[in-house]
Amino acid sequence: MTAPAPAPLPPLCYEGILQTALAEDMGRSGDISGALLPAGKQATLHVVTREAGCIAGLEMSLRAFTLYDPAVQVKALVADGDVVAAGTVLATVSGAARSLLAAERTCLNLLGHLCGIATQTHALAHLIADLPAKLVDTRKTLPGLRTLQKYAVRAGGGHNHRFALDDAVMLKDNHVALLGDIPAAVAHARAAVGPMVKIEVEVDTLEQLDEVLKTDADVVMLDNMPPEMLKAAVGRVGGRMLTEASGGITAATIRAVAESGVDVISVGALTHSVKQLDIGLDYRQ
Amino acid sequence: MTAPAPAPLPPLCYEGILQTALAEDMGRSGDISGALLPAGKQATLHVVTREAGCIAGLEMSLRAFTLYDPAVQVKALVADGDVVAAGTVLATVSGAARSLLAAERTCLNLLGHLCGIATQTHALAHLIADLPAKLVDTRKTLPGLRTLQKYAVRAGGGHNHRFALDDAVMLKDNHVALLGDIPAAVAHARAAVGPMVKIEVEVDTLEQLDEVLKTDADVVMLDNMPPEMLKAAVGRVGGRMLTEASGGITAATIRAVAESGVDVISVGALTHSVKQLDIGLDYRQ
Amino acid sequence: MTAPAPAPLPPLCYEGILQTALAEDMGRSGDISGALLPAGKQATLHVVTREAGCIAGLEMSLRAFTLYDPAVQVKALVADGDVVAAGTVLATVSGAARSLLAAERTCLNLLGHLCGIATQTHALAHLIADLPAKLVDTRKTLPGLRTLQKYAVRAGGGHNHRFALDDAVMLKDNHVALLGDIPAAVAHARAAVGPMVKIEVEVDTLEQLDEVLKTDADVVMLDNMPPEMLKAAVGRVGGRMLTEASGGITAATIRAVAESGVDVISVGALTHSVKQLDIGLDYRQ
Amino acid sequence: MTAPAPAPLPPLCYEGILQTALAEDMGRSGDISGALLPAGKQATLHVVTREAGCIAGLEMSLRAFTLYDPAVQVKALVADGDVVAAGTVLATVSGAARSLLAAERTCLNLLGHLCGIATQTHALAHLIADLPAKLVDTRKTLPGLRTLQKYAVRAGGGHNHRFALDDAVMLKDNHVALLGDIPAAVAHARAAVGPMVKIEVEVDTLEQLDEVLKTDADVVMLDNMPPEMLKAAVGRVGGRMLTEASGGITAATIRAVAESGVDVISVGALTHSVKQLDIGLDYRQ
Amino acid sequence: MTAPAPAPLPPLCYEGILQTALAEDMGRSGDISGALLPAGKQATLHVVTREAGCIAGLEMSLRAFTLYDPAVQVKALVADGDVVAAGTVLATVSGAARSLLAAERTCLNLLGHLCGIATQTHALAHLIADLPAKLVDTRKTLPGLRTLQKYAVRAGGGHNHRFALDDAVMLKDNHVALLGDIPAAVAHARAAVGPMVKIEVEVDTLEQLDEVLKTDADVVMLDNMPPEMLKAAVGRVGGRMLTEASGGITAATIRAVAESGVDVISVGALTHSVKQLDIGLDYRQ
Amino acid sequence: MTAPAPAPLPPLCYEGILQTALAEDMGRSGDISGALLPAGKQATLHVVTREAGCIAGLEMSLRAFTLYDPAVQVKALVADGDVVAAGTVLATVSGAARSLLAAERTCLNLLGHLCGIATQTHALAHLIADLPAKLVDTRKTLPGLRTLQKYAVRAGGGHNHRFALDDAVMLKDNHVALLGDIPAAVAHARAAVGPMVKIEVEVDTLEQLDEVLKTDADVVMLDNMPPEMLKAAVGRVGGRMLTEASGGITAATIRAVAESGVDVISVGALTHSVKQLDIGLDYRQ
Repeated sequence: MTAPAPAPLPPLCYEGILQTALAEDMGRSGDISGALLPAGKQATLHVVTREAGCIAGLEMSLRAFTLYDPAVQVKALVADGDVVAAGTVLATVSGAARSLLAAERTCLNLLGHLCGIATQTHALAHLIADLPAKLVDTRKTLPGLRTLQKYAVRAGGGHNHRFALDDAVMLKDNHVALLGDIPAAVAHARAAVGPMVKIEVEVDTLEQLDEVLKTDADVVMLDNMPPEMLKAAVGRVGGRMLTEASGGITAATIRAVAESGVDVISVGALTHSVKQLDIGLDYRQ
Repeated sequence: MTAPAPAPLPPLCYEGILQTALAEDMGRSGDISGALLPAGKQATLHVVTREAGCIAGLEMSLRAFTLYDPAVQVKALVADGDVVAAGTVLATVSGAARSLLAAERTCLNLLGHLCGIATQTHALAHLIADLPAKLVDTRKTLPGLRTLQKYAVRAGGGHNHRFALDDAVMLKDNHVALLGDIPAAVAHARAAVGPMVKIEVEVDTLEQLDEVLKTDADVVMLDNMPPEMLKAAVGRVGGRMLTEASGGITAATIRAVAESGVDVISVGALTHSVKQLDIGLDYRQ
Repeated sequence: MTAPAPAPLPPLCYEGILQTALAEDMGRSGDISGALLPAGKQATLHVVTREAGCIAGLEMSLRAFTLYDPAVQVKALVADGDVVAAGTVLATVSGAARSLLAAERTCLNLLGHLCGIATQTHALAHLIADLPAKLVDTRKTLPGLRTLQKYAVRAGGGHNHRFALDDAVMLKDNHVALLGDIPAAVAHARAAVGPMVKIEVEVDTLEQLDEVLKTDADVVMLDNMPPEMLKAAVGRVGGRMLTEASGGITAATIRAVAESGVDVISVGALTHSVKQLDIGLDYRQ
Repeated sequence: MTAPAPAPLPPLCYEGILQTALAEDMGRSGDISGALLPAGKQATLHVVTREAGCIAGLEMSLRAFTLYDPAVQVKALVADGDVVAAGTVLATVSGAARSLLAAERTCLNLLGHLCGIATQTHALAHLIADLPAKLVDTRKTLPGLRTLQKYAVRAGGGHNHRFALDDAVMLKDNHVALLGDIPAAVAHARAAVGPMVKIEVEVDTLEQLDEVLKTDADVVMLDNMPPEMLKAAVGRVGGRMLTEASGGITAATIRAVAESGVDVISVGALTHSVKQLDIGLDYRQ
Repeated sequence: MTAPAPAPLPPLCYEGILQTALAEDMGRSGDISGALLPAGKQATLHVVTREAGCIAGLEMSLRAFTLYDPAVQVKALVADGDVVAAGTVLATVSGAARSLLAAERTCLNLLGHLCGIATQTHALAHLIADLPAKLVDTRKTLPGLRTLQKYAVRAGGGHNHRFALDDAVMLKDNHVALLGDIPAAVAHARAAVGPMVKIEVEVDTLEQLDEVLKTDADVVMLDNMPPEMLKAAVGRVGGRMLTEASGGITAATIRAVAESGVDVISVGALTHSVKQLDIGLDYRQ
Repeated sequence: MTAPAPAPLPPLCYEGILQTALAEDMGRSGDISGALLPAGKQATLHVVTREAGCIAGLEMSLRAFTLYDPAVQVKALVADGDVVAAGTVLATVSGAARSLLAAERTCLNLLGHLCGIATQTHALAHLIADLPAKLVDTRKTLPGLRTLQKYAVRAGGGHNHRFALDDAVMLKDNHVALLGDIPAAVAHARAAVGPMVKIEVEVDTLEQLDEVLKTDADVVMLDNMPPEMLKAAVGRVGGRMLTEASGGITAATIRAVAESGVDVISVGALTHSVKQLDIGLDYRQ
């Protein structure tokens, strides 16, 4: 099930990382190449995708230009979540040529990365769009970029799993080993957490699943199970809790996984191994 | 020409991003799953690579554990720049089970990413190791991660091109168009910059190259030229300045490019499209 | 239902606010009164509560001393969650007299506030300890202190409701008015959010409650209802979702509210109107 | 003596804490409930006090809305320092409904706290308004909020005592014990500090007071003295230095304390135990 | 009157600026020259002053080495406030040669500046050491360095005037012009500020001085008056308030100024025009 | 050779230090003197230099006013790099009198310092303006101010040497001692660094120079050599690499140094011992 277009992130969720990225690229004295241009020279630039893909983070990436120089005019021509063809002009940017050259790489580095995530997410979500399973991400994100990467997953039609360790209880095998049997561990967790927190338990076998079904856990993660086994597991759960399939799922296998009837499919590669979407700038003076 | 093993980065170059990543993963109340474990429970964990690859950022990634809990003991068993087989134990980490579980993902997210960069860099550098050309990165990095990504390139046997816009002058076509002919543009740049700054000019044709050869530029970038044309260009330069080949170079083409005799080969994908190296933890209680 | 003693917060969740508070109190040149003392003068100080209460934040408040001067020795004598009598020595602190005087107010300001929260929470939770209802806080916290205030609620035997706006969906009357009828609004929300996010709907009347019961919302908030009406509502829900009572609940009314059978009782005053616990220092030279 | 209405704080004294508070409430993906509303939906909101009280921090609290979304229009209808009746509309706020809902809690949490301080301050200051004594606060403030809390004291008609440890010398009993007799301690202090720094000495008895009167201290703090003893002390001082009464002073006792003739009365509870003023929002679409 | 040796600043007052300075000097990949040395090479370095001077900030400047590398051993051989001859070894530093080379410039840049301030202050204070006047600094400091520069003034035997605009009231001619006559302006100020805040008024003429003497101002600044006029002014004040001489005072004039009997002499050049003390490192391997 | 007027720094390179400086001067409650003025009072202020000099940092220093109060209007009347006479009006500033008084010192402290650097730089550069040598700065800068100080050097007609330790390799005597002979050390360095990084070697004697001439170093620093020896060295180099003269060069000696034919002359005093340019404000109400 593909998510609706995501609501935009508030600027305070992304302006900090843009400031950091601009500072990284300015170094100590700024763009010494662009500084050779005449100060008054104006230009207009087209942000163009060289490949087909799904857009994410366009407005926030363009903010690099106006953070650098508030006099620059930016105009987004497509929206996050849009799927576009190669050659599409995504936005225009106008202003001092020096400012456009200075902020160009900061904008494109972020935009190419987020569109890469959205495009990969959209490709997988599209394969199961007619089935109820939700495609979700994981906590396998890059340092400092989690909020933006997870936004890009939403823009690509995916949903988000836990943002952080305090978001939900996830009991893996080592937790269970240390806490005693599964029902005891879940009861222990339920007493500790507040009413808005869900509890998930990871299982590798159907025997473990039966243990989880004795509890009031909210979600069971079915780890590294083949489609037939997933189907059996879903049947055994019978709607009493959400089911999540996880472990090495790719474009080649996701449809079979979804057809097992699971509610959620998690894919770490959405955020840990991202091929950027190739986006460039064409200058019009 | 493969770079020697890089000197370690000082902690002040990476502790900030680790703190940010830990804060991202702790959220507002930390690891609510690990908190269910007994406070005194100790464990030892093995950091194990599931794939063969080249290591980068091991000490700095392990720092996630000791930033989270100074009582954790970490021990690196291999060094950055080492090429290791699948199954290699890279490090051991010992301490409170709660602390190991809490900092695990922060450590692995960074380590997998940096080893992914080093592995990809090493693979390409290896193909041209007997030739004089240096493999270098670009400014196509991810926001906030440039220092660490460029370190990983060095660990993989690559070298670094410009870190930021203030590092060197790079005159691209649009600069030249705005500044007049190439010799005038280079003279203009030389007068403006200090004595430690190099000047590079990008050319697409041999005619442009001839213009650059009239100047005292330090480096000429030969953009998107096929190997034969690169060879001709290198011959024409005759050692008067450094030559750099750039533009869509892959494992399939890098050897032919290097055989043209260029001094430098730049590859943006080293940092903009990174497949993580799959590294996990095995627990020993 | 009183929560178990909370797991300690990791230092990275509170050291920042302590640094801020120390900086506030040091100003530009530090403790100019303590600076008059001989540099080598050592002292030991007892942290003593002047009132009975429930302890929260003891270790983290004592951290003010060691952040100021790593040579100070601190020793906590009770644990967070403990209920203690007036006159109890909570901790001892030893080191340079100058350091103890300098960090004293920073420590006590935080400790008195957090113990005030825990004491108030404990008093209310105690009144309903034999009933299943959980006492929870709200987002009515003080700027910059939410993580610590919510920790203190846990220490006092309460649980936490949402930490932030991204934690759960909460549909209030104005959301419903804008989104159409309640079932449509909940369906809309369910499609948008990930599988770990709960959905709560606020109702003022039993008619609205019936609408919510047509949905798969996770929690219904029963706002400003008297105990009899709460009881009717709980009966009508019949365990299909969690029920939360909210609105002006005090020590005088909480027992009756809990006896209605609701699962959750939220009290904003736990964090928005805090009477500090009076804690002082006795010096032993 | 009630202070005049305070000059406004410059934004750089409060925008940081507002950014922190907004970030606390946005979490990683912002207001996921408000995001369900149509993007273009506009609304107007009335900030209304549910209780009578004294206003503090209205402009600065409203800044939460425009920091979140610069397109929001805010209009304050009363001024800091005003005393208003229950039901008074303090301000109107207009803009995108999503933005209003997102920043609402951040605004109200700060405003309710600061108005709580001003209201409590005003109530005490009013009781002694015809007498020359100034009501002042202490350093018993909440972490990170001292500047704003002390501003609210001024808005309520109080004055500020020391902001930080470097603001003035305060010699308490333990300082005197370590530094020798009082005259020696004061002389020591006078030599050390600059000409703009005042020196205050705390005394518990009239005998200690006589010692202080041998010095050129600027202020003497009369700690925990009953009104009759304060009167005797004030007479003995005879205007040679300022006198400050301190220690457990409440609405029940402040008038008698002020009638003793002291110049300054300090009350820690103004900032350490604050009951918020109940302020809410009424929506007009 | 020379100040006693100053109490040390707490680390939290200077570690931030050291971190900033280290980051400035490390750039993105640290000391690429020192990185060429063998990792295990140890060295000892002597911090030696090439000129005679007064020491300030030695411990805090040496902290640059241990912030960079906690394994470095530092040992201060003199104390802040000491006056030393050219060639004096101020400290020794031992550890990895790479670390010593990397942090050297950060240490010396700060130390040379602060010792420059202390030396200049000491030279002026020495000229009036037998007279009661205190030499003080101003708010004419360098951005971000005020706390450290004012500490160095204290180390050199000077005292500090206002740290910031909120420290004391200073009524200059333009304030008086806008507020009405001087007595009204001072009364206005007295009502507004708390009891720990002093009020100073600037005068250019003896007529203005007479106006100030009608008030209860704490300090009068006698601006740009020649010594004879200062003497007359001091006589007219007769000890009723402190007197401060200000305006272009140098080593050539300070003695005559002090002999006029003023209490305070302020010199902006102490911090706005600093000649560094030449301090270097001698390596011992 | 004097540098052309420098391109302006982007605001993100200086707004942080201005915010820090404003916060330093505001303290906790801002300008308590200016707060006594009527809120609506407007004024215009002239920024006037009391001395002749070279301007640097005018626009960035004026930014202090608009950061403090966006309603203030600033207008620069001269440009960075301009050489002006005593009494020149550099800028006008208009707005609320309170705002002008509050931000005045922050603006002037920065402006006076940067103009002091530019003036000193211009004076030296002027002495050698007809010769090819470039005047450059060093890493002997003040903590936190390097970017701005080096900008001021450029405004004064100087050029910048290394910004940081990662900018270029600089092999000093101790590096060479530890790395073996000079050719080996340079070869080692060349293999380690990327193609955009220059290598400089310091020599004290002509014998060492001969060793450097066997290498492909980019720059040789001729340390503390008298003009005759410099001339001999320059002759021996014969244009094969850049030559830099360094060590105690002053206005008295710079011309002779430049006449030796060196390419670069470095002077640490440009940034480590700065006499501010005396700039003040004249108020027009």
